[in-house]
Amino acid sequence: MTALPTGTAYQRLEHRFRRLAALGDSAAVLRWDWATMMPAGGAEARAHQLAELQAVRHGLLTAPETAELLAAAEAARDLAPWQRANLQEMQRLWTHATALNEDLVIALTKATSACETVWREARAASDFAAVLPSLKTVLALVREVAQAKAVRLGLAPYDALLDEYEPGGRAADIDRLFGELAGFLPGFLAQVLDHQAKAPSVVVPQGPFPIDKQRALGLRLMEILGFDFRHGRLDVSHHPFCGGTPDDVRITTRYDEADFTSSLMAVLHETGHALYERGLPKAWRGLPIGEARGMSLHESQSLLIEMQVCRSREFLAFAAALMRDAFDGRGPAWDADNLFRLYTRVQPSFIRVNADEVTYPAHVILRYNLERAMIAGDLAAEDLPGAWNEGMGRLLGITPPNDREGCLQDIHWYDGAWGYFPTYTLGAMTAAQLFAAAKAADSSIVPRIARGDFTPLLAWLRALVHDKGASVSTPALLAQATGRGLETGPFRDHLRQRYIS
Amino acid sequence: MTALPTGTAYQRLEHRFRRLAALGDSAAVLRWDWATMMPAGGAEARAHQLAELQAVRHGLLTAPETAELLAAAEAARDLAPWQRANLQEMQRLWTHATALNEDLVIALTKATSACETVWREARAASDFAAVLPSLKTVLALVREVAQAKAVRLGLAPYDALLDEYEPGGRAADIDRLFGELAGFLPGFLAQVLDHQAKAPSVVVPQGPFPIDKQRALGLRLMEILGFDFRHGRLDVSHHPFCGGTPDDVRITTRYDEADFTSSLMAVLHETGHALYERGLPKAWRGLPIGEARGMSLHESQSLLIEMQVCRSREFLAFAAALMRDAFDGRGPAWDADNLFRLYTRVQPSFIRVNADEVTYPAHVILRYNLERAMIAGDLAAEDLPGAWNEGMGRLLGITPPNDREGCLQDIHWYDGAWGYFPTYTLGAMTAAQLFAAAKAADSSIVPRIARGDFTPLLAWLRALVHDKGASVSTPALLAQATGRGLETGPFRDHLRQRYIS
Repeated sequence: MTALPTGTAYQRLEHRFRRLAALGDSAAVLRWDWATMMPAGGAEARAHQLAELQAVRHGLLTAPETAELLAAAEAARDLAPWQRANLQEMQRLWTHATALNEDLVIALTKATSACETVWREARAASDFAAVLPSLKTVLALVREVAQAKAVRLGLAPYDALLDEYEPGGRAADIDRLFGELAGFLPGFLAQVLDHQAKAPSVVVPQGPFPIDKQRALGLRLMEILGFDFRHGRLDVSHHPFCGGTPDDVRITTRYDEADFTSSLMAVLHETGHALYERGLPKAWRGLPIGEARGMSLHESQSLLIEMQVCRSREFLAFAAALMRDAFDGRGPAWDADNLFRLYTRVQPSFIRVNADEVTYPAHVILRYNLERAMIAGDLAAEDLPGAWNEGMGRLLGITPPNDREGCLQDIHWYDGAWGYFPTYTLGAMTAAQLFAAAKAADSSIVPRIARGDFTPLLAWLRALVHDKGASVSTPALLAQATGRGLETGPFRDHLRQRYIS
Repeated sequence: MTALPTGTAYQRLEHRFRRLAALGDSAAVLRWDWATMMPAGGAEARAHQLAELQAVRHGLLTAPETAELLAAAEAARDLAPWQRANLQEMQRLWTHATALNEDLVIALTKATSACETVWREARAASDFAAVLPSLKTVLALVREVAQAKAVRLGLAPYDALLDEYEPGGRAADIDRLFGELAGFLPGFLAQVLDHQAKAPSVVVPQGPFPIDKQRALGLRLMEILGFDFRHGRLDVSHHPFCGGTPDDVRITTRYDEADFTSSLMAVLHETGHALYERGLPKAWRGLPIGEARGMSLHESQSLLIEMQVCRSREFLAFAAALMRDAFDGRGPAWDADNLFRLYTRVQPSFIRVNADEVTYPAHVILRYNLERAMIAGDLAAEDLPGAWNEGMGRLLGITPPNDREGCLQDIHWYDGAWGYFPTYTLGAMTAAQLFAAAKAADSSIVPRIARGDFTPLLAWLRALVHDKGASVSTPALLAQATGRGLETGPFRDHLRQRYIS
């Protein structure tokens, strides 16, 4: 029981949004539990719990009283700047929540839930035709959502979808950035493959690598990176993720006894997400202004740790010794240079989540172009497989042998997440730009990382990224931290430096 | 998102109570997580989540619309009998929730939360004076609660508190039953101690007993008892408990490498609770009528499994072989008769949770008498230690050397749970009466248990206890299952048969 809300409209809004956050945090722990702990038979009850929590949150956010309080707070003259920024975030959440009528929300929830179920079987059977009717239903509803949000937000339909994941994100900016990458990458990829062919071939460490030893090594590296185990855990799930709440951050990985490298890199990637969550400003806990800014910034934090730092020569030279110790590794496979080559191998391939950082943007650009065309009505769902395969041929020079390795591989569209894909590559670019700025600001960062000391890097990230929460826009944060808006230059420089120098 | 509630008042109430249940189930999983998985630093955020979930539930239950719907449904003429019973349970929950004004609820929550914190330190230091001021505050508020609920429910103040844990439970009945036990037990205890002194002395199996082997044995026995691992788990916590939800029942134990017996018995006890939860009627999931009937019946299910069955000669003869296999046990300590004597040792002692089943009722009767006197205003909080020690001397012939082993040992009063204690011994008596009826109804139950087959027992419990949910009162359920109201006879017979025959 908590005291009844009293005070100014603004104070009552804070109370209401803290309640929304507590319910959202509860749901986050329940989702983590689903993926890591829950016995299979608990799924139906859990889905009901999550649906009811979501319904209660939606009801609180869209209640007439919320609108009245927002209007009253808006008119208040005595708000501090941070309170005004907080109010603006409340407005944003409220606008998104109230842009859709209840019938549409329910129809979409049902459609995506049904489609996801069909998709799981369709993907396993590589049977696009089986999921096509469900996908058409989802697409039609998502287009309705995009239209309704476009009207409400005064944005183009695709931008209105994107805005939910990437507040302020606009396709016009993405077009420009992705256009530069699309112009750069094919030629660069050829250079990389050529360069790689001339390098010593990679020796793959041979297992088995016992899971308890893999876990111990992961925990050790998490600790070195600054993960706070008083406020977090490492567990196992089918797909690695970072869940929980800022004061209780829970990351997961999965183990393969034959190969420790991908599990370990998943731990490091998720640790990047976790450090961001944990670093969100404590004073604003439970308020919209205290939340992570958006998906591209979130992904930038995982990719900064994974791609910029942990796949670097400097870090791998340090980590190689720990890996050898962990698995009693001997011989050329455990040499730091070899491990660096192993962790930076480039090879065009069909599956996005397994892609290296050079070819990854092509996967994202393909999906971005396709989802924009589908939202615009320029590409019909039935034409997706053909368009997909044509795009893979054009962007990476390979053609998926089937739809399972093509347009059925990702859950996103089938699950209703349209406008999400570009944030992966925006995140990769942001990571490169932030890390370049961090290194320029503090020349001790890389030498200290090479000794296993992440303190300077973490201090820079805490001050310039994590601690900002959602108090400024992503472009403003980036401008404060790097002196510029998002550009492809630092990402291209990073790739050149790592892969062909 | 779920569809907006429509339909009759009764249907809308079902919708509302399913939502309440989903929020309650969410909280149950979060509490389990707190005790088993949560890193220490997550406590503050988790407490906030639980408080907000509780506030939202209280708000839903006490909203004016709930009262209107209850009144409208009450007037409906087309309800099936089970729906009317369900409605009655809704009324009961609503009456309890609305009996107290918000200020009192908030004051009590704060006072118990503060008192519990002080108590943890006071218990460790055996310093009753340190917690006395907090306890006085709690007691004063609980007496206010009792008075308010008494007026609302038309009950005596103590009965009004008891009613929350044991719907329909009345002190007058407990007085009669506990009076019979108090008359029987002292003389019986002397007989038992005498009988025990003449028996071969107990040989304690010597460890260490590795935790993974203890866990494996626990899992094996849970499976034999009928625990459904598709819908449940076994984990570790500081105090063993049964948590989660009926479709996802989670029990815990704690391990001591030097002694496997108490950990294992905790697993079996909690499995009894879990079987009840899991056996609650699926068709009524999420409705008040589908919930467990009350605390004495819940405790009866754990004690039936633990005390009636798993400490029996027949079961231990079966389980001894599994124990020997699990720990490679050899020699007289692992003999079934010795294990039976070990698991049925009687010895007056200070700590309730470690007490044997012969002396346990004395612990409960003491607390019941003391809490009734305190609620009635006949015993002041400052006089508790003296009254406690006097009672222990009178009931068990021993005097605690300090308050840590006396009136500071249990969390209940300090945490605001007044009127709860009697349900432990009501549960023990109910367990004896139910098991006697089960054996009389199906003579195969014990021989099958002796072969490790719990199917007939579980079938009887499912049909006559679990499947009833809260559709009938505890006395009605007991009358249907055993032909009589609750009596001390079966419990006394059980004790005589086990301890002095």
